[in-house]
Amino acid sequence: MKAITVCPGKVGVEVKDVDLKEELGKGQVKVKTLYTGICGTDREIVNGKISFAYPPKGFDFLILGHEALGVVEEVGEGVKSLKKGDYAVPLVRRGCGVCLNCKIGRQDFCETGKFVEAGIRGKHGFMREEFVEDEMWLVKVPEDLKDYAVITEPLSNAVKGIDRILFTQGRMVWTCEDSTFSCRNAAVIGSGTTGTFFSLILATLGFNVYILNRRDPNPTEAYIAQRIGATFINYSKDANKVPELDLIVDTSGYPSAFIPFMQKMKPNSALLLFGTVRGEKAEITSDLIIDIVEKNILIMGTVNSSKRDFIEALNYLSIWKNRYPDVLEKIFTSRISVEEAPMALLKRPAGEIKTVIQW
Amino acid sequence: MKAITVCPGKVGVEVKDVDLKEELGKGQVKVKTLYTGICGTDREIVNGKISFAYPPKGFDFLILGHEALGVVEEVGEGVKSLKKGDYAVPLVRRGCGVCLNCKIGRQDFCETGKFVEAGIRGKHGFMREEFVEDEMWLVKVPEDLKDYAVITEPLSNAVKGIDRILFTQGRMVWTCEDSTFSCRNAAVIGSGTTGTFFSLILATLGFNVYILNRRDPNPTEAYIAQRIGATFINYSKDANKVPELDLIVDTSGYPSAFIPFMQKMKPNSALLLFGTVRGEKAEITSDLIIDIVEKNILIMGTVNSSKRDFIEALNYLSIWKNRYPDVLEKIFTSRISVEEAPMALLKRPAGEIKTVIQW
Amino acid sequence: MKAITVCPGKVGVEVKDVDLKEELGKGQVKVKTLYTGICGTDREIVNGKISFAYPPKGFDFLILGHEALGVVEEVGEGVKSLKKGDYAVPLVRRGCGVCLNCKIGRQDFCETGKFVEAGIRGKHGFMREEFVEDEMWLVKVPEDLKDYAVITEPLSNAVKGIDRILFTQGRMVWTCEDSTFSCRNAAVIGSGTTGTFFSLILATLGFNVYILNRRDPNPTEAYIAQRIGATFINYSKDANKVPELDLIVDTSGYPSAFIPFMQKMKPNSALLLFGTVRGEKAEITSDLIIDIVEKNILIMGTVNSSKRDFIEALNYLSIWKNRYPDVLEKIFTSRISVEEAPMALLKRPAGEIKTVIQW
Amino acid sequence: MKAITVCPGKVGVEVKDVDLKEELGKGQVKVKTLYTGICGTDREIVNGKISFAYPPKGFDFLILGHEALGVVEEVGEGVKSLKKGDYAVPLVRRGCGVCLNCKIGRQDFCETGKFVEAGIRGKHGFMREEFVEDEMWLVKVPEDLKDYAVITEPLSNAVKGIDRILFTQGRMVWTCEDSTFSCRNAAVIGSGTTGTFFSLILATLGFNVYILNRRDPNPTEAYIAQRIGATFINYSKDANKVPELDLIVDTSGYPSAFIPFMQKMKPNSALLLFGTVRGEKAEITSDLIIDIVEKNILIMGTVNSSKRDFIEALNYLSIWKNRYPDVLEKIFTSRISVEEAPMALLKRPAGEIKTVIQW
Repeated sequence: MKAITVCPGKVGVEVKDVDLKEELGKGQVKVKTLYTGICGTDREIVNGKISFAYPPKGFDFLILGHEALGVVEEVGEGVKSLKKGDYAVPLVRRGCGVCLNCKIGRQDFCETGKFVEAGIRGKHGFMREEFVEDEMWLVKVPEDLKDYAVITEPLSNAVKGIDRILFTQGRMVWTCEDSTFSCRNAAVIGSGTTGTFFSLILATLGFNVYILNRRDPNPTEAYIAQRIGATFINYSKDANKVPELDLIVDTSGYPSAFIPFMQKMKPNSALLLFGTVRGEKAEITSDLIIDIVEKNILIMGTVNSSKRDFIEALNYLSIWKNRYPDVLEKIFTSRISVEEAPMALLKRPAGEIKTVIQW
Repeated sequence: MKAITVCPGKVGVEVKDVDLKEELGKGQVKVKTLYTGICGTDREIVNGKISFAYPPKGFDFLILGHEALGVVEEVGEGVKSLKKGDYAVPLVRRGCGVCLNCKIGRQDFCETGKFVEAGIRGKHGFMREEFVEDEMWLVKVPEDLKDYAVITEPLSNAVKGIDRILFTQGRMVWTCEDSTFSCRNAAVIGSGTTGTFFSLILATLGFNVYILNRRDPNPTEAYIAQRIGATFINYSKDANKVPELDLIVDTSGYPSAFIPFMQKMKPNSALLLFGTVRGEKAEITSDLIIDIVEKNILIMGTVNSSKRDFIEALNYLSIWKNRYPDVLEKIFTSRISVEEAPMALLKRPAGEIKTVIQW
Repeated sequence: MKAITVCPGKVGVEVKDVDLKEELGKGQVKVKTLYTGICGTDREIVNGKISFAYPPKGFDFLILGHEALGVVEEVGEGVKSLKKGDYAVPLVRRGCGVCLNCKIGRQDFCETGKFVEAGIRGKHGFMREEFVEDEMWLVKVPEDLKDYAVITEPLSNAVKGIDRILFTQGRMVWTCEDSTFSCRNAAVIGSGTTGTFFSLILATLGFNVYILNRRDPNPTEAYIAQRIGATFINYSKDANKVPELDLIVDTSGYPSAFIPFMQKMKPNSALLLFGTVRGEKAEITSDLIIDIVEKNILIMGTVNSSKRDFIEALNYLSIWKNRYPDVLEKIFTSRISVEEAPMALLKRPAGEIKTVIQW
Repeated sequence: MKAITVCPGKVGVEVKDVDLKEELGKGQVKVKTLYTGICGTDREIVNGKISFAYPPKGFDFLILGHEALGVVEEVGEGVKSLKKGDYAVPLVRRGCGVCLNCKIGRQDFCETGKFVEAGIRGKHGFMREEFVEDEMWLVKVPEDLKDYAVITEPLSNAVKGIDRILFTQGRMVWTCEDSTFSCRNAAVIGSGTTGTFFSLILATLGFNVYILNRRDPNPTEAYIAQRIGATFINYSKDANKVPELDLIVDTSGYPSAFIPFMQKMKPNSALLLFGTVRGEKAEITSDLIIDIVEKNILIMGTVNSSKRDFIEALNYLSIWKNRYPDVLEKIFTSRISVEEAPMALLKRPAGEIKTVIQW
């Protein structure tokens, strides 16, 4: 079958014919791939920038792809939650089997680092015509979401981040006088795919959302902000328009982007770190530490997600399909063919939110 | 009566005779002061370094002192929890009455900043022969703790910090295979009063405790470390002896002290920030941010404490009075007279853990 | 304006013309009523069976109605969250202002009992052409839900119940090996409005849902069960088909209905009590107590909901509008005119899930 | 060695010489028994009333005893937390190894029921001169507690119950205006060993404690109540003296004992069920169900404990050794010889709180 492959460490990506000889075992499901999404990690692998990517044992190449939607072709003996014709999204990370978090299905909190990740570390990804998976690692997709569910995986990561921030913020009363988040200002730094997901989630939860970027919004970004009731601020010129903040979500990874806004953090506020970049530096002062201490400020990194977050991500997609169908449409910048994929994997098209490969 | 007073903003401290004309109202308690403790904040006020210290309305001086133990002399009408002869410790911070956390007795999480603090901001402290307080702001002290309870207030701050870290770490499974913290390494940076309190609490909870300082331990510190089963590490020469860490508690306030140890932080680990200094700087890199993100690391500032933390602090004192009576004794470096207090307030005696004024 | 009124304590209900002389104050909103729902409590009031219903001060009648959807006609000075033309749902219970839960917007956990409830206790309800409310007690409704949002209030009560059960079940690991609820069996006793809401919520969360009734399902019930993947069991003949249970939600109120199923409760399971009836009795044995103890079983009553639960209820409606539009349609048994309302209020039409009055 | 043995199912108990041929393996510890406690379960086994007691595989007898304190005689290779001469208490229940709670060290929440329990189900107990255990199942005892730590196990069960009740009560604001439990009334039904433990824990946490029994207190009970600031109420004549309650802890197991007091339960209150008896019945009414629903009442069963609860139990013992040394002394009704044990195991001596066998 056709697959999109890389040789981790080397620059380049190709569409080639592979034969993995996968057989459908007990409790397993064969899935025909419908869509796969392209994300920043894919591009970094393709451009040889991610040192931790590696092929599965016995292979000298890695099939890319960790954002996927497929349709069930065949189910093995004993499979209960899926049947032929069902839509399904696969999980990416598979736990180490040793640490307690992996043992209870929270491989997103793996402590040993000995997990594998489809399309990234030691396991073939989903940019191929079909794949076989254990039932446990597949999430059933309601049929009404078949046009959108390819973004379930990246969305689930944002869902996990907010879910865990809401948990940790239970360390005091963080809800408002009316029990909601109506009095809370949340700033999302970055307006790419994940930034957009965070903004949508926070708007849905009732926060006052500010989308921050160092430039003016493009028309799509301006449209989305207006549509979900958020305020887009170009902080390179309007930093003073950023209000006092109860929550900052950084999707940029640049310390120099989020540190200045920490001065706006209110007592009991939180900073969620999601973005990563390499080779940057920034200075912090003991005045910032004083603020963190005296204001009980919390900072938390977040990575990956659990199956429960996938289910919640699907619920968000259903909500938005009703409430912001136009926004959801705009998130899908383009749907390209498998043959066009290598080009899109090498270089991010200008103005892209999410590029999707149709299989 | 005699009181130890300052004029916030000016350097200096004096013992003088004051008449506050406090009357015992309904629900109030008159307390004869037995001991007051001296802490770093007192010394900073005395040396004119704390800009937020200010006298109560109508006064041009501030009575110092926020760590105190007294004995009840007289109770007003309707007082239920205390009677003449009971020992009691006063709370320091009094809430704004407006924000939700203050409304539920968690003024340590005040959001408006409009609280007052006895001996610090807008309210006379307890370095005086007696004081009148609402029953609500007094914590009854079991009689067996009358020689130690003067340190309840500073200890309660450490109790709150650990209590809230244990809460937030509930974001995943942080307990070990045996349900305890026996597999968790905690490093406490600093071996002063608060550092010692944190180390004692963490040892009592079953963590493997490492006490970190940039110098060798003095004999008292070495004794305490050995006694509670902790390892004292002079990180200026033995940084490599610091193991991988699940928890760092910084009591130093120096970013340059704790940032290097963040490289040792394991997945799901936490950094609790308690210490503060002024005028320091440090550099952080995007590699550190990647670590925080990829390892789900949490950082939290903590300040002040609630009445519940005072009660828990008293419980810890009772535990340690049995388990580590010698350690508790060593925490009390010296008990001085009121007349000796100004000198001790101007300059920290070498090797001090806690200096206490006897009234 | 027209209103549907009762004289609490007397049997009867009438449509009459009332003039409440409500004026639009600062921070208030005038709402034109679109729909009001009829629930069991309304019928009990109309039939003189609820002793705690009483009119507002200065009135000898009470306007009924606590399930409503309206459209904003006019907003007072300072209103921020709503504007003319917005759809809105009002809250029912208004807190006592004294207890801590009411102070933080959780009047559903009021401890004094000194709350009022629109259409029930001491405050006029919404079965009238228009009403004025403080902004704080109104929940903005996304436009796509205008045909369904009249059921937000009853749904929010089920949302609160499940939200708090999921919180309390955090007392151990209750999620499954895959982090979801896929291994958990939930039985909902009763297939009326609230029973249906609970079943829908639990299905959306990924539980295996069993709908229990003492009779066969009517065609609507059978359809809904099948559609959401639930199993309908007539327990008067097929009690043996009820599997071991992780969760029971009782909406019947009959001890004789839910107590027998407690024998099926697995270790760590929970029983959520929502329904109430009067004049019933049942026997419990010490064997049942042994089971509760030895299996760490939890039982919890739940009543009312917070504004946050209303927002979550609207999110569920959006999900279901996509996923189960037909089910949502079937929940609305009939939409009747104001003139037809008294009849429907006196007696529940056979096969009703939800009857709605159109204004 | 000498051991106290039973043949489950048959009435009787004997001291006999056994040779278990236990060898000290890697990670194991040989413990010389110092004390073992006698509890109600032991007596039920001896009297043939517990159907679930059974001997270990390959044995036709069961060594009794699940409350023990010993001193380490020898440690196997790799043991880190204990050394020769340390005092230690063994855990009782050993998890199934299959369910998620057992996998994370919470065998007290085992879901499969396939655990074993030393001295009860399928594993020899500690009423013998020495035993070998894996390090993981031993809790190190601070030396100052060597005279009391034999009650760690039964105390840990009460600790777990209260710990989990405090967790579940976090479903709303249950702390008082001063952040403590000073406004909360807790009734403990029963004044035996466990009842006394619950009363002590609740007093230490700051609750207003009421000890309820159907008879007048004996002198020891009266003394303990007075000493810890609790009120002893003989409810068979003074039921009206029981105030409105925020928490009921039942240690009696009799539905007829605790159900009447449920009428006193305030909104948001909780009932913790710990006691069990056989062959009793009681009636409940739908009015009680209405109360549970309308007042958001929670009922929870609790059994067994985790290693973390053992550590916390040791902390409580240290607190009480200071605060209530006389109470602690009175809990130990008598210390008997091994030869006297069978008699004490067959019949509870009048006025016993805890009888302890000295080895």
